[in-house]
Amino acid sequence: MPASRPALALSLVLAGAIAHAADTPAPAKPRTTQQILDASTAEHWRALDPGNTLLMELDDTRRIVIELAPQFAPQHVANIRTLAKEGFWNGLSINRSQDGFVVQWGDPTEEDTQRRPLGSAKAKLPAEAEAPGTPALAKAWTRLPDVDGWAPEVGFVDGFYAARDPKRSMYWPAHCYGMVGAGRDIALDSSTGAELYVVIGQSPRQLDRNITTVGRVVHGMEWLSTIPRGSGPLGFFEKPGQRVPIRSVRLMRDVPAPERIELEAMRTDTPLFAELVEARRNRRDDFYKVPAGHIDLCNVPLPVRPVTR
Amino acid sequence: MPASRPALALSLVLAGAIAHAADTPAPAKPRTTQQILDASTAEHWRALDPGNTLLMELDDTRRIVIELAPQFAPQHVANIRTLAKEGFWNGLSINRSQDGFVVQWGDPTEEDTQRRPLGSAKAKLPAEAEAPGTPALAKAWTRLPDVDGWAPEVGFVDGFYAARDPKRSMYWPAHCYGMVGAGRDIALDSSTGAELYVVIGQSPRQLDRNITTVGRVVHGMEWLSTIPRGSGPLGFFEKPGQRVPIRSVRLMRDVPAPERIELEAMRTDTPLFAELVEARRNRRDDFYKVPAGHIDLCNVPLPVRPVTR
Repeated sequence: MPASRPALALSLVLAGAIAHAADTPAPAKPRTTQQILDASTAEHWRALDPGNTLLMELDDTRRIVIELAPQFAPQHVANIRTLAKEGFWNGLSINRSQDGFVVQWGDPTEEDTQRRPLGSAKAKLPAEAEAPGTPALAKAWTRLPDVDGWAPEVGFVDGFYAARDPKRSMYWPAHCYGMVGAGRDIALDSSTGAELYVVIGQSPRQLDRNITTVGRVVHGMEWLSTIPRGSGPLGFFEKPGQRVPIRSVRLMRDVPAPERIELEAMRTDTPLFAELVEARRNRRDDFYKVPAGHIDLCNVPLPVRPVTR
Repeated sequence: MPASRPALALSLVLAGAIAHAADTPAPAKPRTTQQILDASTAEHWRALDPGNTLLMELDDTRRIVIELAPQFAPQHVANIRTLAKEGFWNGLSINRSQDGFVVQWGDPTEEDTQRRPLGSAKAKLPAEAEAPGTPALAKAWTRLPDVDGWAPEVGFVDGFYAARDPKRSMYWPAHCYGMVGAGRDIALDSSTGAELYVVIGQSPRQLDRNITTVGRVVHGMEWLSTIPRGSGPLGFFEKPGQRVPIRSVRLMRDVPAPERIELEAMRTDTPLFAELVEARRNRRDDFYKVPAGHIDLCNVPLPVRPVTR
């Protein structure tokens, strides 16, 4: 009879490797994900920049951290920083929760003229759904060799899921689980960053290049992914009382030090990270009998941990 | 300023198509997803078999329907039918909720000898992680032409996400959002169907062929995907009080008619379904500016609707 806590798992707790043929020289045993994490040193991690990170609080417990992506959307990120500094989202709400797709927050007011003013933030921005290749982007780019149907190449830029088209020399973030984008109207350049959503289901990569992506949830994702689903069209809440109030969204730099959540993210441009990806592409623990030989971009874990001093 | 209810959406509500060059004869405008659904007739739908469908109730509101997949896992499905008939899960609980991965239910008891007996169900089954090609499977198979990194071919079998290896003539269900599998221990053949999980995040296709998949949630997925996450290893709940009680799991056939949820699912082997897939592969509504030209198996919607009489 199977154990009541079966090993169906991300298997971070499982060790071991597949056996090798006895007659050939034994190659070095591939390390497991956990062994790779344990072997990482300071150089494999980068502290998140508090000037580039949002702390979103629903209440004392439900605290969410979003790393912003100015590499891809500098004007949206600048606007979002301004909105956070001026307390734009404080007292607004999560207004949409569509199963398998997105959770979205901002000002729920229907009437344009009644909506909370954007303060010093810009009311009009260019679309930043993709970014022209710069030396900085080219340097940060780490390709994932696995095939992808949505883009000519996929990989990572500074810890963000990303894609690029080398022929056009364009880069864009990929809509994986936890990625945050700027809601818009029909026009591609109708987003300001005041209305944001996070991906909570199977990666909707069809949104890539169609909408400006501004960052990624790096902590507290579970508080957003479990918001009760809205019963209205597109998962909007039908009654104001169903909306989930937002206590505050602040730039982490503006949060008093004792209240901050200080995190570091694994760098995605090191041989250690490539080894971690391979350990996920071909699981070598005892649970997996058939290594996949492939990994989808959005299945690659991007480890984040508290800063320890 | 963007509307407060921006059109970031599955876009079922949007109509319209991209413009065509004026000098060429206008091809027929591709239909939108909604237009295709509206144009569907009885022949495009199949009623779910109440003898092959589970009704899982957490309470009066949270009612979940699971279609079983005997095509792939006949012995597991037979065992699950027996377990449901004998009320095995009634009063047991959801014991695990791991963000971005799975929600799992069954008997949480640690001690093997203390666990609820399986009754007439078998305590030992062969692994059914993949199925040898039969004429029935070959006939039911509808290939999705889009590239996939996890399997030689992907597609659909009787409304289930599936994959196959034509060289080995083997078929298996694909671990997409909403798919239900049988939790197991380290041994591939250690599942009985008593312990079940559902995929709630980015499709963990690395589990394909590594674990027996037994069906798909076709209704009420939101009640499982929003279960608060467990804080223990692998998302298990650390305190018994955090487990979510299951009122009952019954075969739909054994549910009194007035209490049943009667559903029909869109057939996946018709030209209409292929048209629907194409409408999702290349969105033609006004919201999308760059059609993706691709769709991932797990992004294909599998429409389900109440039976109307």
